[in-house]
Amino acid sequence: MPVTRNHASLIVQGKDRTGIVAAVTSVLASYGANIVSLDQYSDDPHGGAFFQRTVFSLDRLKAVLPEIEKDLQKRLEKEFELEFMLRDMSAPKRVAIFASKSDHCLLDLLWRHRRGELPITVSMVISNHVDAAEEVRSFGIPFFHVPSMGPDKSAAEAEHLRLLQGNVDFVVLARYMQILSGDFIRCAGVPIINIHHSFLPAFIGAGPYAKAKERGVKLIGATAHYVTEDLDEGPIIEQDVVRVTHADSVTDLVRRGADVERLVLSRAVTWHSEDRVIRNGNHTIVFP
Amino acid sequence: MPVTRNHASLIVQGKDRTGIVAAVTSVLASYGANIVSLDQYSDDPHGGAFFQRTVFSLDRLKAVLPEIEKDLQKRLEKEFELEFMLRDMSAPKRVAIFASKSDHCLLDLLWRHRRGELPITVSMVISNHVDAAEEVRSFGIPFFHVPSMGPDKSAAEAEHLRLLQGNVDFVVLARYMQILSGDFIRCAGVPIINIHHSFLPAFIGAGPYAKAKERGVKLIGATAHYVTEDLDEGPIIEQDVVRVTHADSVTDLVRRGADVERLVLSRAVTWHSEDRVIRNGNHTIVFP
Amino acid sequence: MPVTRNHASLIVQGKDRTGIVAAVTSVLASYGANIVSLDQYSDDPHGGAFFQRTVFSLDRLKAVLPEIEKDLQKRLEKEFELEFMLRDMSAPKRVAIFASKSDHCLLDLLWRHRRGELPITVSMVISNHVDAAEEVRSFGIPFFHVPSMGPDKSAAEAEHLRLLQGNVDFVVLARYMQILSGDFIRCAGVPIINIHHSFLPAFIGAGPYAKAKERGVKLIGATAHYVTEDLDEGPIIEQDVVRVTHADSVTDLVRRGADVERLVLSRAVTWHSEDRVIRNGNHTIVFP
Amino acid sequence: MPVTRNHASLIVQGKDRTGIVAAVTSVLASYGANIVSLDQYSDDPHGGAFFQRTVFSLDRLKAVLPEIEKDLQKRLEKEFELEFMLRDMSAPKRVAIFASKSDHCLLDLLWRHRRGELPITVSMVISNHVDAAEEVRSFGIPFFHVPSMGPDKSAAEAEHLRLLQGNVDFVVLARYMQILSGDFIRCAGVPIINIHHSFLPAFIGAGPYAKAKERGVKLIGATAHYVTEDLDEGPIIEQDVVRVTHADSVTDLVRRGADVERLVLSRAVTWHSEDRVIRNGNHTIVFP
Repeated sequence: MPVTRNHASLIVQGKDRTGIVAAVTSVLASYGANIVSLDQYSDDPHGGAFFQRTVFSLDRLKAVLPEIEKDLQKRLEKEFELEFMLRDMSAPKRVAIFASKSDHCLLDLLWRHRRGELPITVSMVISNHVDAAEEVRSFGIPFFHVPSMGPDKSAAEAEHLRLLQGNVDFVVLARYMQILSGDFIRCAGVPIINIHHSFLPAFIGAGPYAKAKERGVKLIGATAHYVTEDLDEGPIIEQDVVRVTHADSVTDLVRRGADVERLVLSRAVTWHSEDRVIRNGNHTIVFP
Repeated sequence: MPVTRNHASLIVQGKDRTGIVAAVTSVLASYGANIVSLDQYSDDPHGGAFFQRTVFSLDRLKAVLPEIEKDLQKRLEKEFELEFMLRDMSAPKRVAIFASKSDHCLLDLLWRHRRGELPITVSMVISNHVDAAEEVRSFGIPFFHVPSMGPDKSAAEAEHLRLLQGNVDFVVLARYMQILSGDFIRCAGVPIINIHHSFLPAFIGAGPYAKAKERGVKLIGATAHYVTEDLDEGPIIEQDVVRVTHADSVTDLVRRGADVERLVLSRAVTWHSEDRVIRNGNHTIVFP
Repeated sequence: MPVTRNHASLIVQGKDRTGIVAAVTSVLASYGANIVSLDQYSDDPHGGAFFQRTVFSLDRLKAVLPEIEKDLQKRLEKEFELEFMLRDMSAPKRVAIFASKSDHCLLDLLWRHRRGELPITVSMVISNHVDAAEEVRSFGIPFFHVPSMGPDKSAAEAEHLRLLQGNVDFVVLARYMQILSGDFIRCAGVPIINIHHSFLPAFIGAGPYAKAKERGVKLIGATAHYVTEDLDEGPIIEQDVVRVTHADSVTDLVRRGADVERLVLSRAVTWHSEDRVIRNGNHTIVFP
Repeated sequence: MPVTRNHASLIVQGKDRTGIVAAVTSVLASYGANIVSLDQYSDDPHGGAFFQRTVFSLDRLKAVLPEIEKDLQKRLEKEFELEFMLRDMSAPKRVAIFASKSDHCLLDLLWRHRRGELPITVSMVISNHVDAAEEVRSFGIPFFHVPSMGPDKSAAEAEHLRLLQGNVDFVVLARYMQILSGDFIRCAGVPIINIHHSFLPAFIGAGPYAKAKERGVKLIGATAHYVTEDLDEGPIIEQDVVRVTHADSVTDLVRRGADVERLVLSRAVTWHSEDRVIRNGNHTIVFP
């Protein structure tokens, strides 16, 4: 969905209690805000965890937002002990895309972005290969080549951090074939979305299509998830599958899988950009 | 989902205005009700139509419900000029299922009901054939045979209305192969859900699988919709499809389609029973 | 598909060589047989493994089949060193269905069978619970109760083997919750099809829906496979999935999964019954 | 699938008779050809129509192909009165892509082609708009701008025919928004594949996404079909759908539909290029 002027998103989460929705919506109503959409989920109505996403529109949003934030702090943080995140949706989130040799996920994102499908600003593309440099720059997007330098990733990761620092709101690993260190994940300090080319938790790790062929599955899939220190174990945002047969070679699986990877990653990026994904431990709440 | 004690559903619809959600939720909060789920949709944030489904739980619900209703009337009907519907979810909706020779949709509903999947009471099954009588009664459900009597349906429909009168909250046409008159639809006075064995608006009317074979489509489908006087033109609740090939005969399409029909109808019945479907002219808002 | 008179299926497999298809089809042509369908697969045209399924029709099939078999032996076994299996399709395969408490897969098979969808004879149902006895017998099918008797399964399995001996062509585990011993699998001497309630190889073993909830997947699935001694590791016949969300409880997953299990198992049983599945090590070739 | 050296495809079709497969395969066997895949379909084993696709490999294919063709003529045309088409698969089919303003289908094909997914040669792109010229030429592909000139298409179509003449084996309309005249279709003399942005036969003609929104469907789709003089009525090659909800605007449907259009068109182009699609009146036989 395109970025809209005068719209804000509000994410609220914490321990469920009676009256939260009423508190949120009456603060918004007191400013004359119009609720455009409201999604709410409680994992147990009796003392479970509570999650709410609200999008509202308001004339002169920018001017009033700080006051609304203060009011919400009073009501939600103090009264209900909830966390909240309030964001002006007219400022698209800034993303760095990491890629390697396989460029189908990278190019699909750039393409969708150019078509106006993704409410993001692509700040930069970082790759350990130079192959895609020209194509990326033809989209008017900065391309940085940071080569992999053997098992010690610290120099490359330091370079990554210098590039990212202050410039991005999240990172997308678009079939980036290097494992990130825990230090990097912590220092980056922004959410990192990865596309894994299997239906997790099946076929964790390298070579999932070859493993899928070996096991003889009848569907293959792709999984977009937030990156944590545990490889392929982070909270899942989106998954999808496609049917295959005994006649498909590993090369065929790679090709069919590429279509699923692109769709799954583009959905995850869209949803994350629009604050539709809330992390809850190793789970996600998705209001698509 | 199973029927739950002390849960109520509240449907609100009308012209969108600032403050509706706040008004609804503060009424509920004033009774200490806990919001279990809340879905909201506005087809245009600037003066469009507004739809909200809220499920809340409250101890001693039955005792307090009339007061909540009065309060909502004051706030919603008088202040906001909205319609609302408030329902104690512990009372399952009562349904009459109409069937003909093809019994797969009928039996699937009875089976799911026995497994505890459907929050409904099946008050009766009415058929223009006697074939299913014994099987239906083995589920402990009354079976009434009302034969079709040629082009003049008035006698049969009068009999139908006598049976339904006061006994049911909605009707399901489970591959019932008779067309209902406009008079019947009006007199019945309850929603009627039909399963049509095609992906509407493709293949309206009789013999959709033969038409699908004739046209050479590569997917066939089924559509659950509310019945209006215009055959197969009522508001669509749910649709799904399944892949077919040139090698499938009409008989194969009938068989593959039967699986889709059962799934689509069971979803539509579940959603209707849980007040998840709101009619808006010839459209539906579905909060699944 | 219904059982058809005067149709035979012929499965050929072995090392690929030039001229196999010509040899098979010229033997059939010499009897005036009409090829109804022919599917062929070679996993490597240069010396890989070859698989062919041919269905042909021939008047007075029963009388001529032994001669055709002899001719095929000469051409295929002697000349090409291939294995083949020739079967009169008018004799439906006989199956024993094993079940436990969950009866949805069992009843779905019985129901489809009664509707004429499955070209099988259900010889018996065996369960370690008595719950389904009456319902099974209402279909006119023998029901045998063989209770589980603790960790030592040998007595129960001996009873199973007595019942199966000579009476069945394959076995279906329709959510049968007991693990079969290697001895039993060998002694049974017929293919055994199991439905596992996850998308294998994800969530092997017990409690897959709880594990799926725990991992936070966005799709759940079911897998039909041949049983080998390695639990949930046998050759996969068919798989499918359904979308779920964060809002689905484990109970919801069980319910949604049940629909997928029924569909996947019914496809696997149909394909096995029609000789559409060829085993190749831990893989299957499926000509659906 | 990539183009492979020394592979040929053979399509045979006509009235079904006993012995066709044997005749075809014994001709091939007599040259030592190895059958890589064989698919066969008869719409009625007793005198119906017969269709067979065979791919075989043979060393020094080019040299021997004319002889094989002569032998097949003798056996198939004379003896069995069948039509056949024999093609050296190492020569990719040449295609002209027609496009208008919407470039997602066009660019998807060019992209897949560059990735080596499509066994075609893109001879040229023709558009009635200049927008995509630079992008197309960056793929090294000729771009021709042939503007639409009002209701009389004869001048534009004459220009199209001059460009196509002798240069292409088929034409793809990649969301080309002009209707082709019957004269053009006949004079072009090659198959023309169109992608229609609906699940045909639903929403024939212009504006299918707006019509889908109006009707309130729960799935939208796309259809690839051969072009005939009857708009949107030609033989269907492939279809697929994607789920939508009441909350999706027409713009959302356009965006979601674009993904389905690209997938469906790319499958249809791949299958056509590999001789996997056989036309039979207004139907297609597809061996995917």
